[in-house]
Amino acid sequence: MATGSDIFPTMYPVAGFQLGTASAGIKTPGRSDLVLMAMAEGTTVAGVFTQNRFCAAPVTIAKRHLDCGQPRFMLINTGNANAGTGEQGIADALKCCSAVADKMDVQVDSILPFSTGVIGEPLPVDRLCAGIPDAAQQLSEQGWEQAATGILTTDTRPKGASIQCDINGSKITITGISKGSGMIKPNMATMLGFVATDAAIHPELLHRAVRLATEKSFNRITVDSDTSTNDAVILAATGASGVEIDETNFDQFLSQLSAVFIDLAQAIIRDGEGASKFVSVIVETAANSQEALAVAYSIAESPLVKTALTASDPNWGRILAAIGRAGIEDLDISQIQLRLNSVLIAESGGRAASYTEAQGQQAMQPEDIEIQVKLNRGQTTETVWTTDLSYEYVRINAEYRT
Amino acid sequence: MATGSDIFPTMYPVAGFQLGTASAGIKTPGRSDLVLMAMAEGTTVAGVFTQNRFCAAPVTIAKRHLDCGQPRFMLINTGNANAGTGEQGIADALKCCSAVADKMDVQVDSILPFSTGVIGEPLPVDRLCAGIPDAAQQLSEQGWEQAATGILTTDTRPKGASIQCDINGSKITITGISKGSGMIKPNMATMLGFVATDAAIHPELLHRAVRLATEKSFNRITVDSDTSTNDAVILAATGASGVEIDETNFDQFLSQLSAVFIDLAQAIIRDGEGASKFVSVIVETAANSQEALAVAYSIAESPLVKTALTASDPNWGRILAAIGRAGIEDLDISQIQLRLNSVLIAESGGRAASYTEAQGQQAMQPEDIEIQVKLNRGQTTETVWTTDLSYEYVRINAEYRT
Repeated sequence: MATGSDIFPTMYPVAGFQLGTASAGIKTPGRSDLVLMAMAEGTTVAGVFTQNRFCAAPVTIAKRHLDCGQPRFMLINTGNANAGTGEQGIADALKCCSAVADKMDVQVDSILPFSTGVIGEPLPVDRLCAGIPDAAQQLSEQGWEQAATGILTTDTRPKGASIQCDINGSKITITGISKGSGMIKPNMATMLGFVATDAAIHPELLHRAVRLATEKSFNRITVDSDTSTNDAVILAATGASGVEIDETNFDQFLSQLSAVFIDLAQAIIRDGEGASKFVSVIVETAANSQEALAVAYSIAESPLVKTALTASDPNWGRILAAIGRAGIEDLDISQIQLRLNSVLIAESGGRAASYTEAQGQQAMQPEDIEIQVKLNRGQTTETVWTTDLSYEYVRINAEYRT
Repeated sequence: MATGSDIFPTMYPVAGFQLGTASAGIKTPGRSDLVLMAMAEGTTVAGVFTQNRFCAAPVTIAKRHLDCGQPRFMLINTGNANAGTGEQGIADALKCCSAVADKMDVQVDSILPFSTGVIGEPLPVDRLCAGIPDAAQQLSEQGWEQAATGILTTDTRPKGASIQCDINGSKITITGISKGSGMIKPNMATMLGFVATDAAIHPELLHRAVRLATEKSFNRITVDSDTSTNDAVILAATGASGVEIDETNFDQFLSQLSAVFIDLAQAIIRDGEGASKFVSVIVETAANSQEALAVAYSIAESPLVKTALTASDPNWGRILAAIGRAGIEDLDISQIQLRLNSVLIAESGGRAASYTEAQGQQAMQPEDIEIQVKLNRGQTTETVWTTDLSYEYVRINAEYRT
């Protein structure tokens, strides 16, 4: 199950950024499961990674190489997360980097490795490395859609976003892909997201851009409140367009970049495991961002709210209960207004006088649901995107690995 | 579904404490849904209540009457929570108290009201009050089992615990019932628990006893991380045994009381919505209680861990991921040991050398599962009890209200 359209968008190539996809038989023979990305010399790269303390071996290595090296290649495998694998996992991730470095004749620390899949199984290094020449041969600036497919696990569809826009009267391109469907509550990053632009950006400014854009996109989604061990979002700027991003046009660039990030983040939620609803939880007039997010996540992560959503049941009492347990000490519940797809459901601590059950039933029918909460305590708004909790979610996660 | 035995225990009556049960047709005609409890004059009563800001009207009234009045009766209805009902809900709860006060010829503030069921529907006061004379006629010290049945909602079985023990060479009785199956993550209280003893205890000491016993029982269980609007645990001491509890024998009493509370709390988990497993998450050698509980709840509330449990799948990678995202900044994952039903699964940041998948499969087969985590950071142990997340949980909660 998934929500929204599954038409893959037109992907504008990014000069200086190539992608190649191969089948290495890591978990399922014949399936695309290995992606190599090549970046032209001089490309600047920034990334954000999972905050999970059990972070995967490739995350450790990718962070190290990003700090010390000059990234030229990214290697992504699915079918195995190389997480919970101890010292052996680190050695295995480095072996894969070496294999790329040897093949492409670059330094080992210019390779960033990424893995996604089952946690706790040893990485099949030999099979993986045997697939690298194939992936290298496929390298092309046209390779985005195949790569978007090559990085999937329990996802049901590839996820991409691409725009061309004007900065200071010159055209730049921003194109990216993401994957992720379960174990989704990114914290400073998402499952996997790779975005490239042909703008030229100094590493420091690039890092600020990826951090700010992630904060309002990948860091605002949750499928099941489970922060993964392997999350990473990478932004690469090849500079091939000749357009330089600096302090004067940074906000303009950030706003375009954020649009791509939000598209990719929402695509993960639309393809959330077992998803039959796409739910925006919008908390308005909060005193600050922290309390707005506390209320939004309390709703978005409540199994009872999520099972009501799967049944298209306007069970707003469960939403009030979730607001009430969000940990806001001095919350005055008589000030709160709750709307489902614009229908006023509750105010003054109870059901709105104007509300009828028929209105509620109708409001819950669409695939896209907006849960809007007004706290009337201040000026801050925060939005979190999530899915329902369906039989299908349980089936997928009870059967995964088998 | 439920786990463990469903034989209802022998309930020792508590002198001075009577229970009467009736069918008021609040939601389902013919079903026991109204319970009246009568306490002899001089009974001391203490309670703990939900911390949910959207607490139900009866919770507000029960707290008020407990503070100001001399409790003589408790009135419990199921089928309607009288929560999210604003000012009307308060008025309705008071009307029910008045009806009991009139019938039994006592002050209105000596009545404690409790409700459980659907949130956000107006309380059917007339039907409820019409059932009070019936319940009053049934009042008897033998009425525990009928009352245990009369307070259920989505529960599949009544829950009771009862002991007789010696304090200073004299016999006292502690008997109690509880209900709850979903929307279970009590915070300072549980869904509903009513415990009576014939010991004599000063209100201040009684309140300390209920608070301490609750902390290690009802406050250590979670079905779905949803803290309810209506949670309450009440402890009544009739004093009929003539045995006085004071500072000299308080610890002895507390230890017996805690045993009853833990029994009742575990009974809620064994009857958790859709439960096919009874899971104890034991976090040992933590630096302090706070971090032990953070790790325990991160595991106990993870949808991915819970779906693996429902499949009897030793998917320990998901447990490591849950430990890693528990928010402990300086956690050294190489120090952690993980056991499933005594089988060492992971250490040194990865799979234990001795572990085989066959061992893991076998460890996950029993209905009762112990997930034991050693952090090797200090001396503190905390235990949390939870269930798996099954198709049945989704079915119950997607269909409830319909």
